[in-house]
Amino acid sequence: MAVPKTSAGRFFEDYALGQVIDHAVPRTISGGERALYHALYPARHAIYSSDEFARACGLPAAPLDDLAGFHLVFGKSVPDISINAVANLGYAEGRFLRPVMQGDTLRASSEVIGLKQNSSGKTGVVWVRTRGTDQTGACVMEFVRWVMVRKRDADAPAPDTVVPDLAKALDPQDLVLPEGLDFTGYDFAQSGEPHRLADYEVGETIDHVDGVTVEEAEHMLATRLWQNTAKVHFDATSRPDGQRLIYGGHVISMARALSFNGLANAQMIVGLNGGSHANPCFAGTTIRAWSEVLDKAETDRPGVGALRLRLVATSGAEPFQLRDAAGKYRPEVLLDLDYWALVPV
Amino acid sequence: MAVPKTSAGRFFEDYALGQVIDHAVPRTISGGERALYHALYPARHAIYSSDEFARACGLPAAPLDDLAGFHLVFGKSVPDISINAVANLGYAEGRFLRPVMQGDTLRASSEVIGLKQNSSGKTGVVWVRTRGTDQTGACVMEFVRWVMVRKRDADAPAPDTVVPDLAKALDPQDLVLPEGLDFTGYDFAQSGEPHRLADYEVGETIDHVDGVTVEEAEHMLATRLWQNTAKVHFDATSRPDGQRLIYGGHVISMARALSFNGLANAQMIVGLNGGSHANPCFAGTTIRAWSEVLDKAETDRPGVGALRLRLVATSGAEPFQLRDAAGKYRPEVLLDLDYWALVPV
Amino acid sequence: MAVPKTSAGRFFEDYALGQVIDHAVPRTISGGERALYHALYPARHAIYSSDEFARACGLPAAPLDDLAGFHLVFGKSVPDISINAVANLGYAEGRFLRPVMQGDTLRASSEVIGLKQNSSGKTGVVWVRTRGTDQTGACVMEFVRWVMVRKRDADAPAPDTVVPDLAKALDPQDLVLPEGLDFTGYDFAQSGEPHRLADYEVGETIDHVDGVTVEEAEHMLATRLWQNTAKVHFDATSRPDGQRLIYGGHVISMARALSFNGLANAQMIVGLNGGSHANPCFAGTTIRAWSEVLDKAETDRPGVGALRLRLVATSGAEPFQLRDAAGKYRPEVLLDLDYWALVPV
Repeated sequence: MAVPKTSAGRFFEDYALGQVIDHAVPRTISGGERALYHALYPARHAIYSSDEFARACGLPAAPLDDLAGFHLVFGKSVPDISINAVANLGYAEGRFLRPVMQGDTLRASSEVIGLKQNSSGKTGVVWVRTRGTDQTGACVMEFVRWVMVRKRDADAPAPDTVVPDLAKALDPQDLVLPEGLDFTGYDFAQSGEPHRLADYEVGETIDHVDGVTVEEAEHMLATRLWQNTAKVHFDATSRPDGQRLIYGGHVISMARALSFNGLANAQMIVGLNGGSHANPCFAGTTIRAWSEVLDKAETDRPGVGALRLRLVATSGAEPFQLRDAAGKYRPEVLLDLDYWALVPV
Repeated sequence: MAVPKTSAGRFFEDYALGQVIDHAVPRTISGGERALYHALYPARHAIYSSDEFARACGLPAAPLDDLAGFHLVFGKSVPDISINAVANLGYAEGRFLRPVMQGDTLRASSEVIGLKQNSSGKTGVVWVRTRGTDQTGACVMEFVRWVMVRKRDADAPAPDTVVPDLAKALDPQDLVLPEGLDFTGYDFAQSGEPHRLADYEVGETIDHVDGVTVEEAEHMLATRLWQNTAKVHFDATSRPDGQRLIYGGHVISMARALSFNGLANAQMIVGLNGGSHANPCFAGTTIRAWSEVLDKAETDRPGVGALRLRLVATSGAEPFQLRDAAGKYRPEVLLDLDYWALVPV
Repeated sequence: MAVPKTSAGRFFEDYALGQVIDHAVPRTISGGERALYHALYPARHAIYSSDEFARACGLPAAPLDDLAGFHLVFGKSVPDISINAVANLGYAEGRFLRPVMQGDTLRASSEVIGLKQNSSGKTGVVWVRTRGTDQTGACVMEFVRWVMVRKRDADAPAPDTVVPDLAKALDPQDLVLPEGLDFTGYDFAQSGEPHRLADYEVGETIDHVDGVTVEEAEHMLATRLWQNTAKVHFDATSRPDGQRLIYGGHVISMARALSFNGLANAQMIVGLNGGSHANPCFAGTTIRAWSEVLDKAETDRPGVGALRLRLVATSGAEPFQLRDAAGKYRPEVLLDLDYWALVPV
């Protein structure tokens, strides 16, 4: 009898604290990934669009869009971490450590940093720190995420509960900025907006105005491009309602791209403090976005400041509404993301 | 109070004669843009498909498809020129001055060359000459377009009326041909058809036979790829009828690609004499195309002639019907384009 | 009167034994084609995804996915071979002779190797051997296919019947393996599965578990990318039922990509023994796949073995059901493909 060839993926009892899982299928980036990212999302941040603009900011060329790199690394982790997940519960301590350039080959691994069986005994929460590395072995990004995973066997013993102590937000001095980055000669006409760090006030909210109605073909193209294999995104028969669930990262990228209108100079994401996929998103939804300025910081790179931003994606209601009276996300909220981005001072 | 971060765009009274507007977000081209163009349209003109074919024609490699460059430059102008447009009224004096090659970074600017307030006092017509330049500052293309734009304030004073004197069609000697272009060794087997300049007669009409039914995902991918931000193309809630209007350039590229069947040797567009988006196009339409030979010319490049062509896209009726008895475009006509293309003599 | 500019394509009486037809429109490959292939299909075979993985296997870089090259060559042949085809009847003796690399320019030609008029006198079967060559003239692949083609004139005389003698399956020693290929240092963690040649047993069947629901936009993007011009794939008005027929190659690539789950180490297709598009496929179908191991072989490349596999794509019924009691393909079977792939020993 031949050994079974397909894997059902890991269940809660298959994870152990300190375990390091190397994720399969490395991926080399070309201009094709960039072009597709710009076709899938209305992405217009100039540093990712133009080699000339990037060079004027001290980079060797335009990197791959920050979130495209994130999706690639995330996608590699799906077969090992979230294929049997009931829910993606959150992100923390995400840092973009090196711009991903064309020609780079990315691989990924995850370390189990927390485990907690749920009281039902049927599921548990797994915390992992996932790292993406390039062909030189340099780490290009890392982030923590935690997911609720089914147990294979409800009778399997519960592991010791370890809940990692995660920063609520990255301290600005823990952000890693791209080598050579320099915004002193920043071209505000070519970037699309005149706003600089000083123009943003903590507490300020921005309605990004535009909306994009999403199609099945688009989110599947995107999700496949990142080699994310979660079947709920592709197989209309996998949910009882016959709908394909849109990969949460598709909503993140759509909202980030929509935020260009008001945040054109929030050029590079360098930190991901947290994020919740507040409600599921399906094809036919018109995604809108608004932002709130949460914090501001200076950096040691010439001309470069940092904005901490809340980015909220909605399915279309009035902006700036996040939670109901009971403190729960309102039904039209799709995403609540907290990140650090670099802006000219 | 923070300054508003999003811009509502320019209204009619914001334009002044002679004003030059630098459009934002430069863009570097790679093989990804070409591959996407060939996935979005049935584009098969050999000089854009094959480096080898292009080299045999005296070019350093296959350029980006002519209209892809046009869409990129056009897209950059949208936030500044047509975001508040009621209608795109026409094109004139378009010239493709240099092939766009992979690795080129395009930027764009527009000069206001005409203004005319409408008698209603609520709108006005703005004429601009838009130029695309590459990273060396060389102009790769220029074209005039005019749009009807809303006034912000109906009481704002009308500007002096200046209507530019535009050529009905470019004179063949004003066409700029790619440096080194040479069709003396042209490979008719590899280009797909045997027809040369002498085989086309002025007045001849060609039914391009094929049709393509268009999908929402496709026109949005295309329109985003050119970083065109006009929300009617993306947001199903922006029109009362809940339909997304397909970017007129998508119809142009679809019709041009369909015209391969009969005009496989009309290799490179070098002049855009005029064009009208006669009726709006929506997803579900099956686009067809026919052409009429309007003029023929010789050029000073070896083996290279020029055809002036009318390209008509329709939503599916019999070919060769353009206007009704009253002289209006028939309802099935989507596009009436007048251009110069280079063909082997 | 001008000569007609569009061609209706060849009919049965236009083919002659021994005739060689050079197909039009060469095509240069970039990273864009690879990125699109990975967006269109859940393709994850590491040797095509990562330059580093490919180099560790003795190749200069990651080639274009095997089937993408096949579709490109096939697509070129469509206007000359199958534009008037009533049916694609089969494939045989397909060999992948050289990996297709970024920067390669492919062209194609077909030789007529068989002709047989049908008893109705209205159609006939044409067998061709199609070859794809690169810019150096080296043959990168070849395959036989046969199609049923309409006659233009039912009264045209029947040609002498010549039915080529085709191998039921390629002998393993006739497979051509990529120069330098070496699986002795194969990284099973990065490839995604631990299974090697010895782990597969002849007769073993594998359910690939996953499914993908296909959309109109996706199959049209794919089919255009390969410059396949058959109008049934694009024009919703071309069939009486208003449906667009999905290009059979789209089903092949989808099934092959789905087969990663269980055949992650079946890295490179090197032989195509045969194939039938058992039933037509339309948008909305959820494609699933299963495989059967038909044969195993060793090769003279270090660490490299070969698996002969049956790959069956279905529209969703239970796996491992191929034919009904009468020996006909069951209605849910879309594809029955027989190929050789290279695996680590």
